[in-house]
Amino acid sequence: MQVRFTKMHGLGNDFMVVDLITQRARFTPERVRELSDRNFGIGFDQLLLVETPTDPEMDFKYRIYNADGSEVENCGNGARCFARFVTRKRLTGKQTIAVQTAKGPLYLSLVDDDKVRVDMGEPVLKPERIPFQAEQQAAEYPVEVNGQLYQVGAVSMGNPHGVLRIDSVDSAPVETLGPALESHPSFPERANIGFMEIIDRNNIRLRVFERGAGETLACGTGACAAVVSGQLRGWLDSDVCVQLPGGKVDIHWNGYGSSVIMTGTADTVYEGRVQL
Amino acid sequence: MQVRFTKMHGLGNDFMVVDLITQRARFTPERVRELSDRNFGIGFDQLLLVETPTDPEMDFKYRIYNADGSEVENCGNGARCFARFVTRKRLTGKQTIAVQTAKGPLYLSLVDDDKVRVDMGEPVLKPERIPFQAEQQAAEYPVEVNGQLYQVGAVSMGNPHGVLRIDSVDSAPVETLGPALESHPSFPERANIGFMEIIDRNNIRLRVFERGAGETLACGTGACAAVVSGQLRGWLDSDVCVQLPGGKVDIHWNGYGSSVIMTGTADTVYEGRVQL
Repeated sequence: MQVRFTKMHGLGNDFMVVDLITQRARFTPERVRELSDRNFGIGFDQLLLVETPTDPEMDFKYRIYNADGSEVENCGNGARCFARFVTRKRLTGKQTIAVQTAKGPLYLSLVDDDKVRVDMGEPVLKPERIPFQAEQQAAEYPVEVNGQLYQVGAVSMGNPHGVLRIDSVDSAPVETLGPALESHPSFPERANIGFMEIIDRNNIRLRVFERGAGETLACGTGACAAVVSGQLRGWLDSDVCVQLPGGKVDIHWNGYGSSVIMTGTADTVYEGRVQL
Repeated sequence: MQVRFTKMHGLGNDFMVVDLITQRARFTPERVRELSDRNFGIGFDQLLLVETPTDPEMDFKYRIYNADGSEVENCGNGARCFARFVTRKRLTGKQTIAVQTAKGPLYLSLVDDDKVRVDMGEPVLKPERIPFQAEQQAAEYPVEVNGQLYQVGAVSMGNPHGVLRIDSVDSAPVETLGPALESHPSFPERANIGFMEIIDRNNIRLRVFERGAGETLACGTGACAAVVSGQLRGWLDSDVCVQLPGGKVDIHWNGYGSSVIMTGTADTVYEGRVQL
């Protein structure tokens, strides 16, 4: 069985995108692992499947799988690629697309310059819901690593994040402090750890050590969490451009009770056909 | 301009293969670099261009480029992919294919099990032609690194190789001794360094630290050099199966004055179309 696919990336986070509306295919976890291999296969971070929704209120359903076959709950970079894909393939003509995901509905809008705007939902700040070990909610929390105290912001964007302010992303100890905080007892389900350099109230640079994955080129939820934490700590305004190693993304947040809005690019690399 | 390509690999050494006989395209070094990127582009070790020969005695011409745009002289893995490609694309019906390369003619034969046999040419053993610093030719030479002497075989397969026998590839100090020998003064043009574990007279395991590239999944000329050196040192017979990290390849050598014959697989991963 041969299947058509499109290779896309959002800030270097790359996807094999497959339209399962106009064609049929079945991906076994073993075949996903093989296809994800960058020397022996196609090579990708995640597989993104575009499907017909089971909920008639929704336009599409999507599912995202890691290379090991496990399902990913939410992925801002994947969502932007998805919106560009269904538009380019003329599967929809809508400007705002309602997508059924494992985590609930997701709304994507096509904006100028081929960018996509994603409603990433409200940040979760209550410690027990992040989850984070603390008596009561605060803008930042002291966390001890090897006898040294760090001030860490704690935010969930559907997945837990810890955010540290550092002087420069170039010299940040991501390789050492990243793993130490990722699996720190304060985060009972572990966490993604963001290292944030503040340039001014509307611009930050960010490196993220992702839970179970190590440092990545661009963590979409990490960008959201960093801006939320930076606002709560009084350092940032509501519109912030986040410079990640893989590129830039714009984050907008109006404070408590509002959704985090992420706007960024999604690029098509090539069209392919592969034997399953 | 859109160009069709095929993604292939030989033991994990992977190629973007482009037919420039039935289509036209121009690859700038900058675009090759972009396309070779494994997150932002297609992702490959080398670009392989299939062209019409300028020599009427030859069936094809091929050129291989590294990701940095530099041209590669010879590549056994690329040659096998090339032979499978021109056959599958019905660009030839011949069983033995004569190819014009930057280094002279290359003869490729399709054999059973979808394997390809490549005539890798005669090994060069004269020290000054490898080049290797020695008074006279020998089966192996003592080379000093950090006060310790190593017995190293020296062979050129169009590119210089040093070959060490080790007890086990699993524990071989490839990361430390590889770079030290690669740029040792005994090899004035540096060398690929092979770490060879002899299982029996017809089977070896091999890891190769490639000149300027570090350890790779499968170095075709390294497999040839290891078998030549192992025969010259009395350890191996004329037919040897070489187990590399990326897979197996069969090497045949009849001794002084004969060509080294390599037989192995070449796999097609997918067909693609990309905008140049």
